[in-house]
Amino acid sequence: MIYCDYAATAPMSDIALEVYQEIAKNFYGNASSLHDAGGKAKNILEQSRAIIAKIFLAKPRQIVFTSGGTESNLLAIDTLMRASDIKGKKHIISSEAEHSSIYYYLKTLAKNEEIEVTFLPIHPNGQINSKELIDAIQPNTCLVSIQHVNSETGSIQPIKTISNYLKHTKIYFHSDAVQSFGKIDISSILSYVDCITVSSHKVSGPKGVGAIYFDSKVILSPHPVMTNHEHGLRPGTVDVPAIAAFSAAAVQACNQVIENSKHLSYIREVFIKKLKEHDIPLQPLTSSDQCPSIVGCIANNIQGDYAMLSYNRYGIHISTGSACSLGYAEIPRSIFPFISNKEEGKRYIRFSFSHLTTEQDILTIIEVSIKIFNPIKEERIHNEKKINWQGTS
Amino acid sequence: MIYCDYAATAPMSDIALEVYQEIAKNFYGNASSLHDAGGKAKNILEQSRAIIAKIFLAKPRQIVFTSGGTESNLLAIDTLMRASDIKGKKHIISSEAEHSSIYYYLKTLAKNEEIEVTFLPIHPNGQINSKELIDAIQPNTCLVSIQHVNSETGSIQPIKTISNYLKHTKIYFHSDAVQSFGKIDISSILSYVDCITVSSHKVSGPKGVGAIYFDSKVILSPHPVMTNHEHGLRPGTVDVPAIAAFSAAAVQACNQVIENSKHLSYIREVFIKKLKEHDIPLQPLTSSDQCPSIVGCIANNIQGDYAMLSYNRYGIHISTGSACSLGYAEIPRSIFPFISNKEEGKRYIRFSFSHLTTEQDILTIIEVSIKIFNPIKEERIHNEKKINWQGTS
Repeated sequence: MIYCDYAATAPMSDIALEVYQEIAKNFYGNASSLHDAGGKAKNILEQSRAIIAKIFLAKPRQIVFTSGGTESNLLAIDTLMRASDIKGKKHIISSEAEHSSIYYYLKTLAKNEEIEVTFLPIHPNGQINSKELIDAIQPNTCLVSIQHVNSETGSIQPIKTISNYLKHTKIYFHSDAVQSFGKIDISSILSYVDCITVSSHKVSGPKGVGAIYFDSKVILSPHPVMTNHEHGLRPGTVDVPAIAAFSAAAVQACNQVIENSKHLSYIREVFIKKLKEHDIPLQPLTSSDQCPSIVGCIANNIQGDYAMLSYNRYGIHISTGSACSLGYAEIPRSIFPFISNKEEGKRYIRFSFSHLTTEQDILTIIEVSIKIFNPIKEERIHNEKKINWQGTS
Repeated sequence: MIYCDYAATAPMSDIALEVYQEIAKNFYGNASSLHDAGGKAKNILEQSRAIIAKIFLAKPRQIVFTSGGTESNLLAIDTLMRASDIKGKKHIISSEAEHSSIYYYLKTLAKNEEIEVTFLPIHPNGQINSKELIDAIQPNTCLVSIQHVNSETGSIQPIKTISNYLKHTKIYFHSDAVQSFGKIDISSILSYVDCITVSSHKVSGPKGVGAIYFDSKVILSPHPVMTNHEHGLRPGTVDVPAIAAFSAAAVQACNQVIENSKHLSYIREVFIKKLKEHDIPLQPLTSSDQCPSIVGCIANNIQGDYAMLSYNRYGIHISTGSACSLGYAEIPRSIFPFISNKEEGKRYIRFSFSHLTTEQDILTIIEVSIKIFNPIKEERIHNEKKINWQGTS
């Protein structure tokens, strides 16, 4: 089996599994309990927070743990809106390519007339346009929420440029870094954003955990549902074993991020080169700034679902879009700038790699791709010949 | 170490730990992914759902998994409000003794003028009063949310009686069963409620998981943040390893619930008998219908925090209130009917037991209690004598 769906989820690393067992067995107290069992759990929680804080070059109090990437995104947006000075109806700028958790949440808030929202379009280079960002800013704009890396195309958004336009304003800047965390070095964007959201299971930690990094200037006013967990931001018993396992996995991923990123760039390069070399009819989507872990492709003359199932028959696991919005048979919003019509969008598939992906995996994928696409190519040539023959008869 | 804070959290059972490891290692796919790795995870998810459904004598589609008890409560209330026919501002009836997640959520919704809410008082028998419930019903009442068992007193609410008063109305009835699940047989309340919420870590499953049972008549309309997870009710990647481990722990707890409940009744009886026998100045709070796992006590002449820390020094872990609202130095709302003044409330402590608590544990707790309270008693007697002597001098 070759797993190429790391953008959807990753297996837990050995260290994460070990830490989970160890903490669940020996530090099971409720971190809010005041006896020793609680105190020990609280210590583990705060050690984990310090570990994640170090990755973000931050103080522990700037880190909030959540139940995952989606909750991180929603809680980050809510917290930044509460922290904003803007009175009356607030305006948020986001993009058409955001993860469904953000996109539909903002749409819902706007529909309920709680906020105004502008979704910036994505251009054929995979990025938003800075001029359009400037034009979208209103006096009541309180927040710009633009992802770091898109899960379907791997496009990296121009975080530094966006930040430059927000300088000297009171607009908060949040970036969803669920796809970039542990894949590319996110320390480069730290000084440009006020808030970053990440997920544990994408970096080989357990599912059910996420984190939010807040810049120290953001005032974290308590969640309306009164609670003393997570700086008052989030109710619910804190999942210390999973948080500890996440911190172990995150440290491992981030310590190796430079090598991993190089490895992923090499893997992507080999993959695209081999696709061309073997004339495999898959067109990789390439952005002007590209995260190497994700290779979105448009297949010629074959539906994405069909391609995905064909690869699956050969034990290769790829996807046709975000696992978070599957079942809607929707074309991912992020790929529209790369395609000329909806029919093309239906032929989208995604390979997503990790440090565990080997060159041999890529060669096997290429072999399988030849098997999948050659009969289709031959059939097409045959049909074209038939048409020609009929046409000239 | 004797752990007597099972109402706050419980250690994961061996079977839950094993299942977690097994599923995290071998079924790590995203349950929403359509390839085999996703399909296998989805199968585990649906098997787990069927297991929990069986406990609730329900169909799998009536079970929704969440990130814990708090999320279960909030999502249950939101879903039932959406399912209700009532137009305009809705009214909810709840009680003064509800878990902070419900109590403060409803308070917040009411403060924001999104709903009207009535919190029924708790009476000295530990229960709400049926007449007060009837009087509270309004034409726009859409939901009654009354807990099954209170976490601080162990009071069981009269679920069947409440249900009788709601018969022939369109009012939904939700009960937070986080404290009763696995401790007493909840099958007895199944036919009286429309919705039950439970938490995994209270039944020796992992933290970070909870579930909601909905009666089949409740129409589950999708969550506003468009998603295909959990019948469209909840966004975010599903934590399949933790859910599978929860289902294993829940089955174990519920299969043994009759024995466990008998054992807990015996443990409580021995504890209260020995407290009396040794004249230990702890007054147990007893309700007209009592869950045996929880023994709330009012100490004479000693603050709860001090008592808790004294027990802690002897390796006995008890609490002074819900771990979910610690840090506020608040007197638990649920104990007010049992006390005559606030000062008494500050002397509240809670012992909470499980099937793992042994009779020997109780004897040790009694020995320690004698050590903690005797010097205080002696000091008090000494002081009283001194006062008397001074008074007669």
